[in-house]
Amino acid sequence: MYWTKYFIPTLKENPAGAEAVSHQLSLRAGLVNMLTAGVYSYLPLGLRVLNRIESVIRQEMNEAGAHEVFLPCLHPIEIWEKTGRVESMKDVMIRFEDQRGRRLCLGPTHEEIITHLAQQYIHSYRQLPVNLYQIQTKFRDELRPRFGIVRAAEFIMKDAYSFDRDEKGLKKSYDLMYQAYQRIFKRCGLDIVIVEADSGAMGGSISHEFMVESPIGEDAIAACPACGYRGALPTDFSEGGSACPKCNGPLVKKSALEIGHVFQLGTKYSNSLNAVFLDEDGKQKPMIMGCYGIGVSRLIAAVIECLHDEKGIVWPVEIAPFQVEVLALQVTDVAVMDLAEKLYNGLRNCGLDALLDDRDESAGRKFNDAELIGIPYAIVVGKRGAAEGIVELKDRRTNSTEKFPVNEAVDICLKKLGRGV
Amino acid sequence: MYWTKYFIPTLKENPAGAEAVSHQLSLRAGLVNMLTAGVYSYLPLGLRVLNRIESVIRQEMNEAGAHEVFLPCLHPIEIWEKTGRVESMKDVMIRFEDQRGRRLCLGPTHEEIITHLAQQYIHSYRQLPVNLYQIQTKFRDELRPRFGIVRAAEFIMKDAYSFDRDEKGLKKSYDLMYQAYQRIFKRCGLDIVIVEADSGAMGGSISHEFMVESPIGEDAIAACPACGYRGALPTDFSEGGSACPKCNGPLVKKSALEIGHVFQLGTKYSNSLNAVFLDEDGKQKPMIMGCYGIGVSRLIAAVIECLHDEKGIVWPVEIAPFQVEVLALQVTDVAVMDLAEKLYNGLRNCGLDALLDDRDESAGRKFNDAELIGIPYAIVVGKRGAAEGIVELKDRRTNSTEKFPVNEAVDICLKKLGRGV
Repeated sequence: MYWTKYFIPTLKENPAGAEAVSHQLSLRAGLVNMLTAGVYSYLPLGLRVLNRIESVIRQEMNEAGAHEVFLPCLHPIEIWEKTGRVESMKDVMIRFEDQRGRRLCLGPTHEEIITHLAQQYIHSYRQLPVNLYQIQTKFRDELRPRFGIVRAAEFIMKDAYSFDRDEKGLKKSYDLMYQAYQRIFKRCGLDIVIVEADSGAMGGSISHEFMVESPIGEDAIAACPACGYRGALPTDFSEGGSACPKCNGPLVKKSALEIGHVFQLGTKYSNSLNAVFLDEDGKQKPMIMGCYGIGVSRLIAAVIECLHDEKGIVWPVEIAPFQVEVLALQVTDVAVMDLAEKLYNGLRNCGLDALLDDRDESAGRKFNDAELIGIPYAIVVGKRGAAEGIVELKDRRTNSTEKFPVNEAVDICLKKLGRGV
Repeated sequence: MYWTKYFIPTLKENPAGAEAVSHQLSLRAGLVNMLTAGVYSYLPLGLRVLNRIESVIRQEMNEAGAHEVFLPCLHPIEIWEKTGRVESMKDVMIRFEDQRGRRLCLGPTHEEIITHLAQQYIHSYRQLPVNLYQIQTKFRDELRPRFGIVRAAEFIMKDAYSFDRDEKGLKKSYDLMYQAYQRIFKRCGLDIVIVEADSGAMGGSISHEFMVESPIGEDAIAACPACGYRGALPTDFSEGGSACPKCNGPLVKKSALEIGHVFQLGTKYSNSLNAVFLDEDGKQKPMIMGCYGIGVSRLIAAVIECLHDEKGIVWPVEIAPFQVEVLALQVTDVAVMDLAEKLYNGLRNCGLDALLDDRDESAGRKFNDAELIGIPYAIVVGKRGAAEGIVELKDRRTNSTEKFPVNEAVDICLKKLGRGV
């Protein structure tokens, strides 16, 4: 992609009102735009990151045997009345009546809808287990939307729902999701903390939260500066007085941001919505359910919170909007632009996503923008290099620079990206 | 994908209340499920088709120089008040207030939002032209939702918006979209009719509708049975009395279903929302806009309307949920299943999407389901063939069957799918 033909509206200054560093950087790097508090548009660069993250999630979910569906945003209230959650979730639920007088809400989550679906199609133990997931927009009437896409009124979630014959099956489905989540977050470059958690409005018994340490998090974890241990905050935690279970050193409290949550739901929803099946023993039983959520749009913010420096975002390769940026320093110089385009085409021919900064801007502006938008590698093409057949390769993460002969640059990029030549 | 591990809930009977053949087949083939009138869930097979269609659209939109964004569903009413459409679209707009007292609506279309976005980032003629598109869920308060996903309250659209310096630029952007639309619909297997149309609630001057002939369409076109001409219905049309412009034979009236619409909007939205730019001559001017829509979910129905027979759907290769189905007739026979799995893996190793019907069902049921879900090619593996090293290849479109030696089957499939060996 040529920068001049694309749409990357970077900002030099931090926009007013953006407190969190992820909020500041996602606005400045031209990833998102605020329409109204808690409601964001994804600009091309932000959508690219979103797509990459979704692709990682889909791979791992499919690998774990889940199947993708796409459920509606509009829900009839009647289904929510059957589970009693029209009451327990009333503070976050956006409700209205349509012209026909139907009472509808915008789905804040989809346990009711998926259980109603399973009830229609699954009738025998032979059809179980089933795990269905979707990546979809959810709505919550947030009184205090905050930190950009971290706590929004309209946001994107991956939600999965497992249906099993028995508790043993549920535990297996739950473990598969637990492991898939570990892989997903690792591929997104995150160092997560998993803690046993409260099931809250979802119901059910066992649940685990997947969190990252972040000053904007609303949860708290315990960390041990001595041995690096991190885990759930002890219920009787006291600063300086609680000991690390691993090294016995003193624990400290840290803010953490929830990015995923898995629940063993049991039969709460299948009982309320009559999602039963005929088991091998000839008896009718409610399906045993689990549900598994990832805040997909929030995950973008979490990655920026964890992976940035004072100059901008540092995307991990797997979810970067582009893998390599070619930075042409003097775009009016024919030799420079020829070489830059040759490298750009070479990268693309190897299947890499490349961005060519062909703007007629100062080198300073272009370097700053490259650091701000955080593409993992940049090939810098200047006048002198073009004459000598030498280019510079910048590594965004380590900030190091190496020089290479022009004809080796593409292969070096492939190697650094783990795509062995 | 193994059928027994997947989720394809086919139905033997036509569900009550489904009039249109596309509605019947999309329910029977397990593509979609109705949550409430006008609101549908996409099941795995339906989502696969949706993804294929979206992928065709993305390829052609990107090829035409448009950039993908993702805009919100929740819109502040204030923006709609500025263009006056809060009045003109009030019958289809779903409105409500949130807890903070903000007046919001669910986006029935996005001219206002994209113009507001362009106004914030585009300030100079140097940044033009720009064409931004999205594939996203839209909402309309349909009093009479009909024909399943054809006229729904919640549906998926591709909408694109072009911004140009002048009328000449708009015409160029418009032509690019017009041509992209022709390619998109052709790749979806459709034989479309393009007619000049009324701009309606969108405003602007010139517009064209892309339609397919279908008994469930709410528009009308003129057709000449003698020479095959199809076009706009003359304003003074009278059955038997209107002559075909091509061969002078008598024209007849046919129902047609709109699947795409392109508009030259001009400055209606840029004027209302102050989307101006500084032109080369130093003058501030409103951007000249066009907008371009495709009913993505409706397109699924349109393809089924046009491409089916009495047995089921006949997907064109490019948007089929799977390209080849392997039909194992006797799944308890080890030789049959071994061969079926070998073929299935062979297809997948060549990068094809294959479905293996490994259900322990009668051959009749499996043939019926294969014809219902409409995968372009089926390889039939039976006892006798397995013993003799022979399989049958069925072509869903022509209904013809050929026999091939087992070791040639995968190559033959590749060839038939246009993927030369």
